[in-house]
Amino acid sequence: MRGAVLHAPGDIRVEQRPDPTIEQPTDAVIRLSATCVCGSDLWPYRGIEAVHGPTPMGHEYVGVVEEVGSDVRTVRPGQFVVGSFFASDNTCEICQAGYQTHCVNRQPGAATGGQAEYLRVPLADGTLVATPELPSDDLVPSLLAASDVLGTGWFGAVAAEAGPGKTVAVVGDGAVGLLGVLAAKQLGAERIIAMSRHESRQRLATEFGATDIVAERGDEGVARIKELTNGLGAHSVIEAVGTQESMMQAIRATRPGGHVGYVGVSHDVSLPGQELFFSGVHLHGGPAPVRRFLPELIDLICNRTIDPGKVFDLTLPLDQAAEGYKAMDERRAIKTLLTV
Amino acid sequence: MRGAVLHAPGDIRVEQRPDPTIEQPTDAVIRLSATCVCGSDLWPYRGIEAVHGPTPMGHEYVGVVEEVGSDVRTVRPGQFVVGSFFASDNTCEICQAGYQTHCVNRQPGAATGGQAEYLRVPLADGTLVATPELPSDDLVPSLLAASDVLGTGWFGAVAAEAGPGKTVAVVGDGAVGLLGVLAAKQLGAERIIAMSRHESRQRLATEFGATDIVAERGDEGVARIKELTNGLGAHSVIEAVGTQESMMQAIRATRPGGHVGYVGVSHDVSLPGQELFFSGVHLHGGPAPVRRFLPELIDLICNRTIDPGKVFDLTLPLDQAAEGYKAMDERRAIKTLLTV
Repeated sequence: MRGAVLHAPGDIRVEQRPDPTIEQPTDAVIRLSATCVCGSDLWPYRGIEAVHGPTPMGHEYVGVVEEVGSDVRTVRPGQFVVGSFFASDNTCEICQAGYQTHCVNRQPGAATGGQAEYLRVPLADGTLVATPELPSDDLVPSLLAASDVLGTGWFGAVAAEAGPGKTVAVVGDGAVGLLGVLAAKQLGAERIIAMSRHESRQRLATEFGATDIVAERGDEGVARIKELTNGLGAHSVIEAVGTQESMMQAIRATRPGGHVGYVGVSHDVSLPGQELFFSGVHLHGGPAPVRRFLPELIDLICNRTIDPGKVFDLTLPLDQAAEGYKAMDERRAIKTLLTV
Repeated sequence: MRGAVLHAPGDIRVEQRPDPTIEQPTDAVIRLSATCVCGSDLWPYRGIEAVHGPTPMGHEYVGVVEEVGSDVRTVRPGQFVVGSFFASDNTCEICQAGYQTHCVNRQPGAATGGQAEYLRVPLADGTLVATPELPSDDLVPSLLAASDVLGTGWFGAVAAEAGPGKTVAVVGDGAVGLLGVLAAKQLGAERIIAMSRHESRQRLATEFGATDIVAERGDEGVARIKELTNGLGAHSVIEAVGTQESMMQAIRATRPGGHVGYVGVSHDVSLPGQELFFSGVHLHGGPAPVRRFLPELIDLICNRTIDPGKVFDLTLPLDQAAEGYKAMDERRAIKTLLTV
């Protein structure tokens, strides 16, 4: 089969890779309908995360089940499924508490190599969720978004305790941040402040439910959020970048007793204990347990309540993955969908 | 009046200080019944926090109202009151959300100089809570504990979401940690693991409700907590020390999705973003909004449900404050009560 492989920073090639097969009785193999490029794929692409030899890329996927192992019970060949990027059994105590990304049997590399024609998914019963019926083509981008960026933005909003009566600020205008706006809106937030300097992203944020836009960042951004919140700061702040600046911006923009939900993968972040202590905020985040939210998100998408697929502003065939990465790296595209 | 003053690290003197007076119409002056030495008083005493000239010490207090300003409505002369160490109006949006330590009109230095005969308390209506009647002498230590260490341990347990069905671990066997054990017990925790190497403190922890004792600390302590929790870690961990080691111990002893409530004042703590991210824990803490809990705590003490005053294992007259500090510094005493 064909699949995207990162050979070195900036060097993505779509090449022949072995067809995945059932290795464990709990596996499924799915034929992908669409896949995409994640903000976190840009870390190794940019050389910020080390690349150790040729690495199959991609961990966001939707498709049709091709084959299942003998122990798989809840999905069957022919079903359209959405999966999360960590395989989980969905039955252990940690999964039952809603933290499938920390499943005691988790397989973090589970969906590695998802930018390809086929994908082996371990722990299929605990990882994949089937749609009620085969979705129409126009729903595929949104379902694909559910497998990571939507689930991650949603977790950010839940971790930030976005809800009725709350003012929610969102740091980061990538796909996750924008879908954090959408999630905050769905969760009933009263006011949603999107922090973005880019007109097209501001527009999408507004479409997703942002009531205010703040173009300033860093200390000026924090000051602006304070101005908009009677000097107090937001109740809830979603951090969707993962840098020192964005984390501090999120913490400082949150009122005492408020909640920071951080879902940007932390890179070289170090939180000053004393400032955090005296901030009085709640901090929660990490790799999103997308599986927790999938049934609800699939439902909201299939009944057309939400349209998170709008974050894909570039669609290319899988073979042009390199251009898809480049466009995101140069911020010409918010997120690239790759058709398979 | 007489009051304790820190002149330099290790140099506490009880000397003549000016009698406090009503300065603002919202002030009260109280005649102290008892005061005490806080773990946080040891930071400057040990020279870890800088001492800039002679500094009146103490911020934990109970006593009888002597005089009130013209705007004070809820407390009156003759009442026995418990106060929190930050003065707060208890009416602003932040106070109403339960974060009186971050009151928009807060006065952090409010109770400075509480190791003395008299104390001026600003924002008396929002800071002081009167007991239903004059308490008998044996209740005074417990009421004094409520003004800081109990309220702080309680906040740690609440921030860690201790409750029914939960396994709670407590890092730190000082007065705050021990009262975190008591709080976890009151909040209904199923299992409470106290981390302590000192026999007398282990005994008190058990008396307060600890079901298990772990003497190991650092990585070994974390491994022991994991052993006791089916490899998962505790649901809730109360951090009551404030060092890098104790914070990391707390984070690592918490299961993914669990809660760390940290109330040890952070000193030179720096949290590694990536480890925190992948830990999946909730983090909340800071200076405890004791005022939030005072009515409930006073009630529990006055009806003799709890006896937090047991943390005072050394009682001295105010004039011997220097010995009280020394005994705590050398860990000969858990906490020193000073009679006035």
